[in-house]
Amino acid sequence: MSTERDVVVCEVGLRDGLQNLDRVLDLGIKKQWIKAEAAAGVSEIEVGSFVNFQRLPQMADTAALVAFAKTVNGLKVTVLVPNAHGAKLAIQAGADRLSVPVSASESHSQDNVNRSHQQMIAEVVAIRDMINALPEARRPLLEVGISTAFGCTIEGAIAQSKVVSLARQLVAAGADEIGLADTVGIANPIMVRNRVRSVKDAIGWHRLTTVHLHNTRGLGLANAAAALEEGVKTLDASLAGLGGCPFVPGATGNIVTEDLVFMLESMGLRTGIEIDRLMQVREFLAKHMPDIPLSGFLAVAGLPMAWTQSSPDIVAQNSTMPTG
Amino acid sequence: MSTERDVVVCEVGLRDGLQNLDRVLDLGIKKQWIKAEAAAGVSEIEVGSFVNFQRLPQMADTAALVAFAKTVNGLKVTVLVPNAHGAKLAIQAGADRLSVPVSASESHSQDNVNRSHQQMIAEVVAIRDMINALPEARRPLLEVGISTAFGCTIEGAIAQSKVVSLARQLVAAGADEIGLADTVGIANPIMVRNRVRSVKDAIGWHRLTTVHLHNTRGLGLANAAAALEEGVKTLDASLAGLGGCPFVPGATGNIVTEDLVFMLESMGLRTGIEIDRLMQVREFLAKHMPDIPLSGFLAVAGLPMAWTQSSPDIVAQNSTMPTG
Repeated sequence: MSTERDVVVCEVGLRDGLQNLDRVLDLGIKKQWIKAEAAAGVSEIEVGSFVNFQRLPQMADTAALVAFAKTVNGLKVTVLVPNAHGAKLAIQAGADRLSVPVSASESHSQDNVNRSHQQMIAEVVAIRDMINALPEARRPLLEVGISTAFGCTIEGAIAQSKVVSLARQLVAAGADEIGLADTVGIANPIMVRNRVRSVKDAIGWHRLTTVHLHNTRGLGLANAAAALEEGVKTLDASLAGLGGCPFVPGATGNIVTEDLVFMLESMGLRTGIEIDRLMQVREFLAKHMPDIPLSGFLAVAGLPMAWTQSSPDIVAQNSTMPTG
Repeated sequence: MSTERDVVVCEVGLRDGLQNLDRVLDLGIKKQWIKAEAAAGVSEIEVGSFVNFQRLPQMADTAALVAFAKTVNGLKVTVLVPNAHGAKLAIQAGADRLSVPVSASESHSQDNVNRSHQQMIAEVVAIRDMINALPEARRPLLEVGISTAFGCTIEGAIAQSKVVSLARQLVAAGADEIGLADTVGIANPIMVRNRVRSVKDAIGWHRLTTVHLHNTRGLGLANAAAALEEGVKTLDASLAGLGGCPFVPGATGNIVTEDLVFMLESMGLRTGIEIDRLMQVREFLAKHMPDIPLSGFLAVAGLPMAWTQSSPDIVAQNSTMPTG
């Protein structure tokens, strides 16, 4: 397939999906998953996180996964790092992009990483310094993902001004890029539009690249479409929607990679991903985790009759969406 | 609750939902359903259809339901009528709004109502004449819903120009309003934007009022948000998403009323519908049809913490959506 992409779909199932499971998926299976998704055309995968492996044993093989993923031609390898120590390990492993979660909710930040905003900003400064000390060719991209950017299960509503102010501080602290994450599935399309636009206005349009959405209340794809219309270029998603919240039985997790790719390609936006091959990776997952419920509509309904990827006649019909 | 509404949510579960079930729901249950949803603030309900009752026995009590629904204060009562004969019965029963399905796909039209486009246009002319012969105060609104307006399971793609041309002809034939229906769940947000806008441009902005969406591939709410942004004021939906296609096991049907209301109210768009009471009607349905699988995300995940309906501080944040 063409490698020209209008939208980058970043697979986060290996991190956000697997960290929520009550088991450790075999390293060999994870490698096959990465390889197969890359072969389907996925150009960016968050392969794991450098966290406390005693707390999250599912992530203990992250260094090995980064090393493996770096051998896959053209793949951009992202890892989540909660602090400077994790960033050091990620840099040693050779990750292309570090994603540091900083929660807009101070309570969530304490719960999740046991640190206040000021402490997290200090971590970002330390990571920036660590990166700048590297030879230029070896420097990974430093993204800070603002979690609970649309609301929090502990604090409830999170003011937009708080998110904007935090984004500004994080860029000042050294973040190359800012992402906004709807960690608990609270966002709606208006909120996404408004927050994306306000943050872009505050920190520069090129610096807000990624939106991370959950489909907890079924609004995930509506929110994704809103983000695209505000110029977001990278959307996180998880194959089969892996990553349901363990505290809400039956609640779905991240937006479903295959449903998102279907929506984007139907809209004429090129993802570079072959949907048939992506569905095969889903089947691979189903085979190796037969007891894990998989989400997603496309897998049930199938592709529409005579459907083609990025159909150019659809794009030609007075599109109002960004296509380049 | 306030009866001021930014968006009208029209409940179609009693028609599009029940017609797909393999049983006939008791008339008394249907009446309670109508009464409870109206009490929750739903202002428009499609209560049934005047079709061949031997083919669709689920709809045989439509006249009784119209009569009952007309006793519910302030409720706009819609029925589906496939032809002039059905329209005559609907007028006798006292319906406020007739919805005539005309398929953009000629093959689907033959399959569904055994009539060509020209025959269906002739039916619309006959219905218009029938309505015009009534005293002005008794005239129902004549809506024509263009089904398969975004694609068809028999013909595949349906050209936008065909939909626009059909809409023009139907207005010329006497339709007060045109609706666009994604009968088989193929639409995407760009397609919705483009087709809604093109049809509005062709027939006048006030004449395209309703969009009818299915959630077959999970894009229903994304398509709804796109329709709203193009000025659509009425969205059909079905409580618990009743109405899955009998030919696609597990495929969901109409967009879910309660998820749609949640999205709209979260966006600050007033629906006039109390979500807590709507969820009670869902529970009523679950109780009376315990073996029917119910769709919907909100029912699983629940409302977010501290969530309020049509939160004004969200509306105030530079909304780009129509709110009046």
